[in-house]
Amino acid sequence: MSMHNSEPTRFVNVDGARFAYRRFGNPIGTPIVLLQHFMGNLDNYDPAITDALARGREVILTDNTGVGASTGTAPETVAGMARDAASLIDALGLEQVDLFGFSMGGYVAQQIAVDRPDLLRRLILVGTGPRGGEGMAQLDPEVAPLFGKVYDPQDLMWLPIFFSPSDTSQAAGRVFLERIRARSEDRDVPVSEATVAAHSAAARDWGAAAPGSFDYLNGIRQPTLVVNGSNDIVVATLNSYILQQNLPNAELILFPDSNHGSHFQFTEQFNRYLTDFLER
Amino acid sequence: MSMHNSEPTRFVNVDGARFAYRRFGNPIGTPIVLLQHFMGNLDNYDPAITDALARGREVILTDNTGVGASTGTAPETVAGMARDAASLIDALGLEQVDLFGFSMGGYVAQQIAVDRPDLLRRLILVGTGPRGGEGMAQLDPEVAPLFGKVYDPQDLMWLPIFFSPSDTSQAAGRVFLERIRARSEDRDVPVSEATVAAHSAAARDWGAAAPGSFDYLNGIRQPTLVVNGSNDIVVATLNSYILQQNLPNAELILFPDSNHGSHFQFTEQFNRYLTDFLER
Repeated sequence: MSMHNSEPTRFVNVDGARFAYRRFGNPIGTPIVLLQHFMGNLDNYDPAITDALARGREVILTDNTGVGASTGTAPETVAGMARDAASLIDALGLEQVDLFGFSMGGYVAQQIAVDRPDLLRRLILVGTGPRGGEGMAQLDPEVAPLFGKVYDPQDLMWLPIFFSPSDTSQAAGRVFLERIRARSEDRDVPVSEATVAAHSAAARDWGAAAPGSFDYLNGIRQPTLVVNGSNDIVVATLNSYILQQNLPNAELILFPDSNHGSHFQFTEQFNRYLTDFLER
Repeated sequence: MSMHNSEPTRFVNVDGARFAYRRFGNPIGTPIVLLQHFMGNLDNYDPAITDALARGREVILTDNTGVGASTGTAPETVAGMARDAASLIDALGLEQVDLFGFSMGGYVAQQIAVDRPDLLRRLILVGTGPRGGEGMAQLDPEVAPLFGKVYDPQDLMWLPIFFSPSDTSQAAGRVFLERIRARSEDRDVPVSEATVAAHSAAARDWGAAAPGSFDYLNGIRQPTLVVNGSNDIVVATLNSYILQQNLPNAELILFPDSNHGSHFQFTEQFNRYLTDFLER
């Protein structure tokens, strides 16, 4: 029985805006808050990961401002997205959380760690990179079109973006798609073009190379788990190495034959590593 | 009850030379053969790791030619060391093994994977690097003297070489030293100066940068686990990343606040990861 697929979408109002979220799991220990990737909404979190997490803690899936069923205008900076995500966490009355940020959600998680360190117990950064990381100012010219193309159904876009070209990885991708399609009722609203444009601007701004752009990482003292695939075509894998090398207390895991969504491919293994990290 | 500390040293003769080894554990599944680091003998394997491994498989600790109680002249090339280690494995009647190489033992393990692929089921490469890796032609000028200094007792040399300068890491180092001192009888023979000189030459030869020096990695098809500390001062951590990026089926784990001997520091965690890797 998947709580991920059966728990209703909930809403909370902050300063006149409405945030959509889902909250479920075992109400013990530190809750974990998940921050979503570019073009993803509440239905793009992976039930194979969130249901596993929910056995040992509360899991909170979030839509940032302007994403899915959350109202408001999406910020054009990671700083704005971090402020809004933190205001949602505050509105839920959570005093300390673990933060799990994937891709752009990882940018937001890092920024929250800088701005609101007391809010954060541990940090999980998957398929992501630091401010001004390697090749992060813009998508590779061969990768960018994958985000703009029309697919039928549209979620097929995640096969080339999250998975490697190998048969094994693509097969794992198709199973992943089945998982995120399984919720049949109360699905979230597609991400609007205006939000896509705002988040594109936020990603470009975050990724712009600048001297000393990694310096802030040394101030993030929380235990951090950094995970990626061997060849991430969206946020180059080298950036996960850079995160580990510059964060004072980070462990790095890189999976073989995988891309941006390695955790959707090596899911059981990822769950074991993640649970180990959260419970040690 | 530590088998590591109680099992006798054994010997096997190959072509007139005598290899020293220890063999213990649960005789099921694929045996694991451990290949030792520069200046280490049978007493430098960590009982916290080998006893844990021994619960699920046979563990074979090895001295290469000219090391400890093994007779013969130590080869001056990794190719020679790989040939000798493989001949020891053959002499023990083992048809397929997992290989665990630490540091120079990792060079030897890679070479065996190239020369004798059928002998190998899985590969574990800790604190090591590829042929011609980054900064591997010679030790850093600040690090080289750590290997030549006189310490009292001499095994204190491993504190700066294997552990980071932090209080936490150094404390873990002192516990590690207690572990490798615990075997009270039938200890191995110190590594001779002649063997140290031969192995230094082998390491310089392996580490010499050359165009295409990573190409062989693409031919190592075995599942491989690559592990290192965040700041390895002996074989720069970047080389572990290079291994993962060039091996077709490798997972990388980098631990925080650690050096060349991260597995001696994060031992419980390392054991969980290693068991998971061997049993999946």
